[in-house]
Amino acid sequence: MMNVTELIRKKRNKELLTKEEILFLVSGFTKEEIPDYQFAAFLMAVYLNGMSKDETFFLTEVMLNSGKVLSLESIKGFKVDKHSTGGVGDKTSLIIAPIVAAAGLKVPMISGRGLGHSGGTLDKLESIPGFNVNLNLKEYKKVLSKCGAVLIGQTKEIAPADKLIYALRDVTATVESIPLITASIMSKKMAEGIDGLVLDVKTGSGAFMRDMKDAEALAESLISTAKSFGKKVIAFITDMNQPLGNYIGNWLEVYESVKILKGEKKGDLYDLSLTLSGAMLYLGMKLKSIEEGFNLSEKMISSGKAYEKFVEIVKLQQGDESFIINPEKFKRARFSEKLTSSSTGFLSKIDNYQIGMASLELGAGRKTKADTIDYAAGIIFYPRIGDYIKKNDVIAELFSNNKNNLEIAKKRILGSLTYSPRKVNQPKLIKKIFI
Amino acid sequence: MMNVTELIRKKRNKELLTKEEILFLVSGFTKEEIPDYQFAAFLMAVYLNGMSKDETFFLTEVMLNSGKVLSLESIKGFKVDKHSTGGVGDKTSLIIAPIVAAAGLKVPMISGRGLGHSGGTLDKLESIPGFNVNLNLKEYKKVLSKCGAVLIGQTKEIAPADKLIYALRDVTATVESIPLITASIMSKKMAEGIDGLVLDVKTGSGAFMRDMKDAEALAESLISTAKSFGKKVIAFITDMNQPLGNYIGNWLEVYESVKILKGEKKGDLYDLSLTLSGAMLYLGMKLKSIEEGFNLSEKMISSGKAYEKFVEIVKLQQGDESFIINPEKFKRARFSEKLTSSSTGFLSKIDNYQIGMASLELGAGRKTKADTIDYAAGIIFYPRIGDYIKKNDVIAELFSNNKNNLEIAKKRILGSLTYSPRKVNQPKLIKKIFI
Repeated sequence: MMNVTELIRKKRNKELLTKEEILFLVSGFTKEEIPDYQFAAFLMAVYLNGMSKDETFFLTEVMLNSGKVLSLESIKGFKVDKHSTGGVGDKTSLIIAPIVAAAGLKVPMISGRGLGHSGGTLDKLESIPGFNVNLNLKEYKKVLSKCGAVLIGQTKEIAPADKLIYALRDVTATVESIPLITASIMSKKMAEGIDGLVLDVKTGSGAFMRDMKDAEALAESLISTAKSFGKKVIAFITDMNQPLGNYIGNWLEVYESVKILKGEKKGDLYDLSLTLSGAMLYLGMKLKSIEEGFNLSEKMISSGKAYEKFVEIVKLQQGDESFIINPEKFKRARFSEKLTSSSTGFLSKIDNYQIGMASLELGAGRKTKADTIDYAAGIIFYPRIGDYIKKNDVIAELFSNNKNNLEIAKKRILGSLTYSPRKVNQPKLIKKIFI
Repeated sequence: MMNVTELIRKKRNKELLTKEEILFLVSGFTKEEIPDYQFAAFLMAVYLNGMSKDETFFLTEVMLNSGKVLSLESIKGFKVDKHSTGGVGDKTSLIIAPIVAAAGLKVPMISGRGLGHSGGTLDKLESIPGFNVNLNLKEYKKVLSKCGAVLIGQTKEIAPADKLIYALRDVTATVESIPLITASIMSKKMAEGIDGLVLDVKTGSGAFMRDMKDAEALAESLISTAKSFGKKVIAFITDMNQPLGNYIGNWLEVYESVKILKGEKKGDLYDLSLTLSGAMLYLGMKLKSIEEGFNLSEKMISSGKAYEKFVEIVKLQQGDESFIINPEKFKRARFSEKLTSSSTGFLSKIDNYQIGMASLELGAGRKTKADTIDYAAGIIFYPRIGDYIKKNDVIAELFSNNKNNLEIAKKRILGSLTYSPRKVNQPKLIKKIFI
């Protein structure tokens, strides 16, 4: 019989834990045989002393096996997903899934909700009237095999240990730990029954990993774990020092995604989305490079196939596709306001976290779990770092169904901008590729 | 309103906590307003990131003020205590208290019970038939003012936070932390209402701090905290690589203490006890050196005053003094056995922890809280490191009221001894003095 205190002591003393020991701890905790105060001490020891590659893999495996692992063997084709660590205006999932499915691969996507300043794919999808992210596993397979993509939320059957551990991490200051983040992400992704995975690790003022060094360490940990599971994997480190695209807020982001899918909009969101879908196609098809995948993605857009695929997904998941075909149908927020610049100069820095928080203040996110989301709320944010802006230029439009929120959001946005009298370079969008 | 998770995060990030923040955490935990899983994560962060001198002092103060601080103002004279971090055969409290009281100072001693391989003063005193360590505060003051010394156990009123925190440390592998040990010891000592304190920090194979470096760090932390409370303090680091004296086990240790007090026995126990009592006398009387205190202590023994004082303490605490006057009256253990050496050579090393555990196996300690102590159980251990021992020489006598225990204890003792063909130096008894 293993002794819990001895295992905590081992991790405390930076000794390596075996798979059996990690299994004992995690399954004991999830079965409520190990009290949460012991698991909390263990989590802090992991936070401060880290975990080896093997330990991280074992932890992921144990968390994965706490629930169901979907078998998609009955569905033909290469199954590939993308995971982003989250940020402001990051809506690439909505663009990528139809592109990759249109090109012939299978995209079984299990996504999350908004968290703090960062939006969530499920909330965005639910802004489409009728869209159902709560499919059961039978419906999930049906939609996937029918149209090649499906977008749902985490079910209770998938990695239940993760939910319990995350709740404890949240109140014990042990969230920002690379092995714990790795196991949390990968235990859910590995449950999807995928063959390949593309990772988008964000870095910068609007990312959870602000420092490049931390982002690199997380990317390496995620890749190592995915490889230990025998999966094909590519990881990118991409910029989150400014919003991705111009639209922030749930319906606004669906709207922008549709513009991209129709080929009506270019820019950083277009470039990143097609790079990520390009990497997915590279993994799953016999292509020579990510660039070839990018070109194939572009074809999916110019041919209209990606847009059609998106409409098909919306329909199959019980969404009202008329809102996609005619976005003007969506009821605008009752209140909106144009925000003008208070200074003149080159935009040198954005505290992108504050932009995300401003969108949350407008109603696009939840302050507490009980809050309901205002799907029409959000921001259209125009400038990019490096732009020359004059005082009184319009820099953003704010939308909310609660008038009081506009003032708070305005202050946050204006306070987040730094101007310089000298020219400033655009930050590089794609900072690193691990292939 | 402070946020618990933010405070855990601060300590996790090696930032300094204020007195108010430490008060918020400790009082929240003791009032059950902060759940134990959050306090457990905090304890692990303290274990791994440490605490500054100020933080340690604040923690001690907060734990001290969780209970009563005794006021001994009504009792005249300098009040002084000694604290030892514990070891095998360490019975100096029984010798020191009567010496120092006989010399005219006041010794209000609050002691603990045995812990693992290490014996406890309270258990030793309770081996004297009738001896009552559970005096209430009124009786405590009465005995102290009447005879100048009193020896009791921790009451519920003294530092209750320590008890709660220790219980959590015990199951979360956060016991061996210098700031946490410091706060635990000092919160109880400072509650005694003393003016001065002598510290005996043990190091070696039978000590909790095996390494000299750890012992030094603990001694420095204890001194710094005592000084922050405005107390006079001297600390010693002393050897625990072999038992102190020759007798281990509760009544056996009382027996040896009486021999020392009567002047019938010399050696390391005599030297250390009189050095410690000498330091206490140096702190509380107008002496020029610890040596003068040592000499005065010797006088207390040669004059018979220290022995008489011990008999007086026993009487006032309801013990049957006839057992002190005539120790042969004490009922011997039903089973005893002489242990002979299995090798020839110079005794070069003793795993003193194993000697302590052997005594526990014989019945002198508790394996679980519910165990009762066999007061007659224990070991008379003869050799000292450096001694030349021949095969079949008697090295120890074992005592127990349970015959089965003898075999286990014998094995532990034999396994703990290392012999060398070459001469070996005695370890230095007093390794360092902080004055």
